Amino acid sequence: MKGITILSGGMDSATLAYFNADRGIDQAFISFDYGQKHVKELSSAGVIAAKLRCTHRVVDLKSVTPLLKGSALTDDKNVNMPEGFYAEENMRLTVVPNRNAMMLSIAWAAGIAEQADIVYYGAHAGDHYIYEDCRPEFVASLSHAFLLGTHGLKPSGIMAPFIEMDKAQILKVGLELKVPYESTWTCYKGRTVACGVCGSCQERLEAFAKAGIDDPLPYENRRLIPKRAEISA
Amino acid sequence: MKGITILSGGMDSATLAYFNADRGIDQAFISFDYGQKHVKELSSAGVIAAKLRCTHRVVDLKSVTPLLKGSALTDDKNVNMPEGFYAEENMRLTVVPNRNAMMLSIAWAAGIAEQADIVYYGAHAGDHYIYEDCRPEFVASLSHAFLLGTHGLKPSGIMAPFIEMDKAQILKVGLELKVPYESTWTCYKGRTVACGVCGSCQERLEAFAKAGIDDPLPYENRRLIPKRAEISA
Repeated sequence: MKGITILSGGMDSATLAYFNADRGIDQAFISFDYGQKHVKELSSAGVIAAKLRCTHRVVDLKSVTPLLKGSALTDDKNVNMPEGFYAEENMRLTVVPNRNAMMLSIAWAAGIAEQADIVYYGAHAGDHYIYEDCRPEFVASLSHAFLLGTHGLKPSGIMAPFIEMDKAQILKVGLELKVPYESTWTCYKGRTVACGVCGSCQERLEAFAKAGIDDPLPYENRRLIPKRAEISA
Repeated sequence: MKGITILSGGMDSATLAYFNADRGIDQAFISFDYGQKHVKELSSAGVIAAKLRCTHRVVDLKSVTPLLKGSALTDDKNVNMPEGFYAEENMRLTVVPNRNAMMLSIAWAAGIAEQADIVYYGAHAGDHYIYEDCRPEFVASLSHAFLLGTHGLKPSGIMAPFIEMDKAQILKVGLELKVPYESTWTCYKGRTVACGVCGSCQERLEAFAKAGIDDPLPYENRRLIPKRAEISA
């Protein structure tokens, strides 16, 4: 069984990479440089790929970056990175419009080139509320469209094994598989050390807290910010 | 009404650009450099955009080119450009796997950035047999997936006004709109003058022949090659 796995360098896709390796899937990794401030995640992706001894291709999509204005992940001039809890009003700013459709369409082309059976994608349930392109109905529908466009060729579909799991559940899977989380990168800010306060860091710290394990990553500020519900309670 | 129109620089998309301009649609054009041998079409796209006084963005997708191996349009080393009639056994070699899904996903992101109502796409019925990503069911399905992934934002859909027309019918529309066909580029070979013998040139020459009009483009060899059915008849 051959797979193309989209590897961002974050916790979820790194766990997916180890989950697939554990199941004996022959993987090729693909990552995307779309002008994200946290481009550091691509080095993490390279480390994970090297540890698993798989090929790793980084696709340069920086020509697309000017189209992704309005997102805190790519637009330095106009949008500041939100801090604090992983809640809609903040995290909406981090949506990169149609990003996953772009990445998946290119990963699908890579899958054809490599005659891979499946395109693997690390979307998870924690993302559903904010990121519409992480929802099961989106993945199923896009997979169907690609099949119509490339009938009779591999791959046969997009699989997102964690799409109904939250980050704490994914972490539990990964800890059993000994995923080197110290080599993954989650922070949305483009600094040397993870900030600890952006929504993405907060979600990661919360997952480790739930698992009762110390996150091996150094942080500028390792502190869970109370959610609004907890403040008002 | 605002539209993002994918402009390859060929006859069909140039006609679409004029068709939309005639209907008063405020267009932004987008083209893709994916390592096609006939990159000359992008200059033609620039000329059409300038004539219509619209913005024109060329997205650099050359980082994806190595994934598109096996197509005569992008793979110089392994696949020669087929010559002669526009028939399956030849033209299959010119399929670029999942190309239109990639282009449409980026055009959709551009549509969000520009708050465009519609993404316009020049697919036509002559392409259906060979190019699965030019068929109505593919366009409808992909449009649906993008909507699920970017709910509540513009654009509202992908429109392909010529998807049930053949090239001769499109040419008829274009001749009435005075599309400057001398400024369009159709040949799949990357030479200075159109070859006249590749499947794409042959289809174009056939459309002009049906319309009873001389193609204003110079050719190395302007001669319709009989189709197999005509040879054996």
